[in-house]
Amino acid sequence: MQLGDTIVSIITGSTDGAVSVLRVSGPKAMSIVTAACNKNVNHSKGYELHYVQFGKPKLIDQALLSVFKAPKSYTGEDVVEISLHASQYIVDAAVNELIAKGCRLAEAGEFTMRAYMNGKMDLAQAEAVADVIASQTQAEHKMALNQLKGHVSNRLKVLREEITNFAALIELELDFGEEDVEFASRNRLVKSLTEMRAGILKMAQSFKNGNAIKNGVPVAILGKPNAGKSTLLNQLLQDDRAIVSNIEGTTRDTIEEQITINDVRFRFIDTAGIRETENPIEKVGIERALAAASKASIVLYLYESKTQTESELKEALKQIQEQTEATLWPIANKVDIQKAWDIQHISISAGQGDISDLLIQLNESAAKLKNEIADTTISNQRHQQALLKAVEYLDDSIHALNTGMGGELLSLHLREAMRVLGSILGEIDNEEVLGAIFSKFCIGK
Amino acid sequence: MQLGDTIVSIITGSTDGAVSVLRVSGPKAMSIVTAACNKNVNHSKGYELHYVQFGKPKLIDQALLSVFKAPKSYTGEDVVEISLHASQYIVDAAVNELIAKGCRLAEAGEFTMRAYMNGKMDLAQAEAVADVIASQTQAEHKMALNQLKGHVSNRLKVLREEITNFAALIELELDFGEEDVEFASRNRLVKSLTEMRAGILKMAQSFKNGNAIKNGVPVAILGKPNAGKSTLLNQLLQDDRAIVSNIEGTTRDTIEEQITINDVRFRFIDTAGIRETENPIEKVGIERALAAASKASIVLYLYESKTQTESELKEALKQIQEQTEATLWPIANKVDIQKAWDIQHISISAGQGDISDLLIQLNESAAKLKNEIADTTISNQRHQQALLKAVEYLDDSIHALNTGMGGELLSLHLREAMRVLGSILGEIDNEEVLGAIFSKFCIGK
Repeated sequence: MQLGDTIVSIITGSTDGAVSVLRVSGPKAMSIVTAACNKNVNHSKGYELHYVQFGKPKLIDQALLSVFKAPKSYTGEDVVEISLHASQYIVDAAVNELIAKGCRLAEAGEFTMRAYMNGKMDLAQAEAVADVIASQTQAEHKMALNQLKGHVSNRLKVLREEITNFAALIELELDFGEEDVEFASRNRLVKSLTEMRAGILKMAQSFKNGNAIKNGVPVAILGKPNAGKSTLLNQLLQDDRAIVSNIEGTTRDTIEEQITINDVRFRFIDTAGIRETENPIEKVGIERALAAASKASIVLYLYESKTQTESELKEALKQIQEQTEATLWPIANKVDIQKAWDIQHISISAGQGDISDLLIQLNESAAKLKNEIADTTISNQRHQQALLKAVEYLDDSIHALNTGMGGELLSLHLREAMRVLGSILGEIDNEEVLGAIFSKFCIGK
Repeated sequence: MQLGDTIVSIITGSTDGAVSVLRVSGPKAMSIVTAACNKNVNHSKGYELHYVQFGKPKLIDQALLSVFKAPKSYTGEDVVEISLHASQYIVDAAVNELIAKGCRLAEAGEFTMRAYMNGKMDLAQAEAVADVIASQTQAEHKMALNQLKGHVSNRLKVLREEITNFAALIELELDFGEEDVEFASRNRLVKSLTEMRAGILKMAQSFKNGNAIKNGVPVAILGKPNAGKSTLLNQLLQDDRAIVSNIEGTTRDTIEEQITINDVRFRFIDTAGIRETENPIEKVGIERALAAASKASIVLYLYESKTQTESELKEALKQIQEQTEATLWPIANKVDIQKAWDIQHISISAGQGDISDLLIQLNESAAKLKNEIADTTISNQRHQQALLKAVEYLDDSIHALNTGMGGELLSLHLREAMRVLGSILGEIDNEEVLGAIFSKFCIGK
């Protein structure tokens, strides 16, 4: 990506509507568009609309120009958006015309990258653009919009300012080092740092909920062979309160079924395949199921009292609990013909189509999750990793204070914590990292 | 369709880009949009852009409004276009918001119908909007754009004015009827009418070329079983100078293969199925092939000298020629191993992959077709039918003049001719006809 260029791309996707829009952005946007139509926009003051004959000398279309003058535009540069009749032929011809007049094709994410580079938004907001566009549910949309509006960024700025002020205090103390002045008691400093650490950790931990809203709540269905796992999954998929979508496990090894319940997506991880392994060593199957459970937020453990004694069940539950931090829901199946064991459980009869108690629980779980989403909930793993790194640096700082280490080291740890928080907002000097972030965008964004 | 309503629709098609645009049009466009965002556009003078928070009280998106004041808008009504982040969730939420505030969903073609109703364009231009959007090749796009720009309409207006002036003369004569005045000699009048008739007929006949550009040139491949028809078709499809697209014969009974050569689409009508009929009466097969030939612009008749004598070939060609006005191209196949008969023909060896002489002919045919496309070439069957009707009325007028019938009857025929020409431009008082024309549009147009 080269910032000095003037770039062009279609921003409305497929040409299957009535209108398609091109965006031209960069220092030569005005002169290039002027060269390509019958209107001179070189001296535009911005926020202007013009109806023009586009294409010069050969008319391509009757078009509408929306002209934006830097810095009051999406990218912060001179921008002209061109509304054309939605025809692939016209769009191709218009893009070629603009390229002939001096544009180059925009790369994926380049408009938003320029908006970030020109200070129109910080990096967390730029990332939110992609999330807003990808959002499928109301909860997901709300969270992405909060991030785009800067709620996450503002909270991060406050946290970083606290550390900055703290570091300034320590550094002031350093200046007076030889006089052995202590502006604040060590205990008081440790207390302040511990509070900052808690605030940052809390934000890092909000990723679990944010990610569940953005990517779906992972649910593993476990149980002995023939406990009714597939029957349960089929019942969940059939339930008309659930919206079902099938996705191929592109980056995962398992096939998942996605079901939206109460505006939250649940990703049911299909461990049915595990059961059917022809590997003679049963242990492999169990290990794989436990691995699935370890990645889940909720584990449904299905049992039948007829084929699993109470002590066997308790042993299995204990084994799972050791492997996962997920919420474990024991499910007594076939309660129409079998008794349930005396542990807290959810009763269903999957074969009879009665899974209503489970649906109620999932519904409540969705409500609880949505309720926990705050304005500052994060949903981006890059942000979570940076926040956890900041927690580590604060731990180092607290350790330095507790063990009476020198102020220089303390100051160093604090500066590192500030740096990683800054990286979320985009204070990054590594162009490759930036490139990697924006290349995940689609063309036209 | 109800003109008084304020309507809304997405106009950019699929939400697979970065931006989606909604259009609101109607008397309440300004007040509805004002009710749905944080900007009051009630007193807008039009041609204004505003960056707004859209959704009230619940924010849906940060949006860009393009405001157009009647009559300076696409539809001629108050119009607001709303650019949103391209997310199905956001688009649905925004449309619902606008409906809640008083819009209704636009029907297919309704924006363009309103543009026509409000005199922003005549009917021929409105129809051209759909053609511009659907155009796939440069030639098709140029023709549709000519129609949108009014070249066809202007030519029609000139033709109609000539008849109007002529009719006025005749009617003036009628007023002086009792005095037996003749302002112009009958011969002179017949000559004028004959010239007008020729102009209109020429325009009606341009439909053949216009339609070929718009819908592809129909080419039938005929020949005895095993003459190599399928092999030839496969070779045409494989040739890398041709762009191939498969379309299901939705309104036709046959499967077609479309190939674009020299920017013109050729529709090869697959008569291969005919050969494979299990109907014992061979005649049915021949009839079907002849029927395909009768609808084609070009008929390729494939023969092998080994299996078809020269007299048999001549007989077959004569039979086809009687059934069709298409250009008939005899094709001698397998010229690498067989001689060709002594008639004008194109030589190929389809089995050997040598069809270059045929491709040269098709290429020239495309060039010739494009060369014949004028600014006033029509491509709409409704227009052709109306023009042919006008020719009939002028024939009646000429007949009336030649047989010395009264001026009243002559005037009546001329008025009918004017009426049918007017119907192309939209001077139609039948709402059902209008509905049928616009319902062929897609939503958002």
